[in-house]
Amino acid sequence: MITSVLDVRVRYAETDQMGFVYHGNYFTWFEAARIQMLDDMGIPYKTIEAEGAFLPVLTAHADYRMPATFDDRLKIHTTITEKPRLRIRIDYRVTRADEELATGYTLHAFIDNEGRPTRPPKAFTVAVGRYF
Amino acid sequence: MITSVLDVRVRYAETDQMGFVYHGNYFTWFEAARIQMLDDMGIPYKTIEAEGAFLPVLTAHADYRMPATFDDRLKIHTTITEKPRLRIRIDYRVTRADEELATGYTLHAFIDNEGRPTRPPKAFTVAVGRYF
Amino acid sequence: MITSVLDVRVRYAETDQMGFVYHGNYFTWFEAARIQMLDDMGIPYKTIEAEGAFLPVLTAHADYRMPATFDDRLKIHTTITEKPRLRIRIDYRVTRADEELATGYTLHAFIDNEGRPTRPPKAFTVAVGRYF
Amino acid sequence: MITSVLDVRVRYAETDQMGFVYHGNYFTWFEAARIQMLDDMGIPYKTIEAEGAFLPVLTAHADYRMPATFDDRLKIHTTITEKPRLRIRIDYRVTRADEELATGYTLHAFIDNEGRPTRPPKAFTVAVGRYF
Repeated sequence: MITSVLDVRVRYAETDQMGFVYHGNYFTWFEAARIQMLDDMGIPYKTIEAEGAFLPVLTAHADYRMPATFDDRLKIHTTITEKPRLRIRIDYRVTRADEELATGYTLHAFIDNEGRPTRPPKAFTVAVGRYF
Repeated sequence: MITSVLDVRVRYAETDQMGFVYHGNYFTWFEAARIQMLDDMGIPYKTIEAEGAFLPVLTAHADYRMPATFDDRLKIHTTITEKPRLRIRIDYRVTRADEELATGYTLHAFIDNEGRPTRPPKAFTVAVGRYF
Repeated sequence: MITSVLDVRVRYAETDQMGFVYHGNYFTWFEAARIQMLDDMGIPYKTIEAEGAFLPVLTAHADYRMPATFDDRLKIHTTITEKPRLRIRIDYRVTRADEELATGYTLHAFIDNEGRPTRPPKAFTVAVGRYF
Repeated sequence: MITSVLDVRVRYAETDQMGFVYHGNYFTWFEAARIQMLDDMGIPYKTIEAEGAFLPVLTAHADYRMPATFDDRLKIHTTITEKPRLRIRIDYRVTRADEELATGYTLHAFIDNEGRPTRPPKAFTVAVGRYF
């Protein structure tokens, strides 16, 4: 299992007129948390793209339980439970202190410069191997 | 069944450095398509909020099949298949000419000014009754 | 002089908790209006980038007089008053029926694939020549 | 003079297909830096709104010198040079290590719940008095 945590502070721009964070913005936090997790694994996403591999989102899902509001200090908890093979599933939990505000997941697969499915870069496979 | 279609032209701001539309932005299109569908039903969302009812997103989901790119002319097809009761499920299909780029759905429930679950406004129930 | 108009409908995602459109989002409308103006001139921006030229923003400016709100139908009026040479200045006016909500401008210059300043593409110069 | 600094890490969502940060997103960073400055002054913006005062943007301006790219670690330097009276001017500088990527400013004035111009809240005036 791979886990990581990112601290996020809610920006004003992220709220909508309901007074809460606009639901679509959680996916940007998920992305930032994913980037942090790859950092923690020693394979920054920037270096992955530099090698000509990309990790687009195939599926994005979020369940909203309680609203986040402006200026909240949140934690985005990231988990990979199953060893990634062709498909990579990443789970997310958004918490504010003891409250769980939302959960979600994304599915990914590596593609190359031409948009064709490709094997994970070696550095990724090696890094993942340390956890599973 | 309720159906609606919204035309969307992809903005430069919606792309990311992969050269495609950032996945999170599809949820903004889903929202715009939902608003259009309520218009088509004769109950603009603005009038729903004016009566003190809100329709937040409980779940958001998208599956991405092919990337959308800058300046694409897309159609967002919206469908409600099951008669909405406490939960409302709305399905979406994003197409570019004959290609299906993505599908998704959102779940909603009405809340009042205080954030408490509430019955749908009368106008909503009446409008929905014309379709189911 | 070159002029163009784009219709915009305010999306929920564009509002913030003040109940108005977040100020930063006007720059996305300015961009969409700019793209429309290039279309009207017969030189879609997509074709400009396809030829290896880019038109980044050097300066962005907006003055906000009255707030825009969710679901507003706005017009973004675009004007080029001075013949573009190395620098291109584009002015914007955001109106809602008879009200002027905001004005602004952006400055641009062409760059090539490597980020170096470059001459405008021939098609651009020819198109501009029809107006000045 | 009042000064403050905010650390920002560039998100993937903030880039566009030119491979750089979309220009409109700098205004969101300016906002986050402004919020940080108010924190540093001991008057979090959240407490200002809680007292029924709002500080909308009247003017927004940015000059872009060098592009910011994905994953950059930036600093947003915020300065108030002149004692705020009815109008408040805040200046911004975006830096990456020793490089200055962009500068800008925003103008603000306090309004009340009804959108009418109003005096700054007492806490704001007191806090500002410590610097000028």
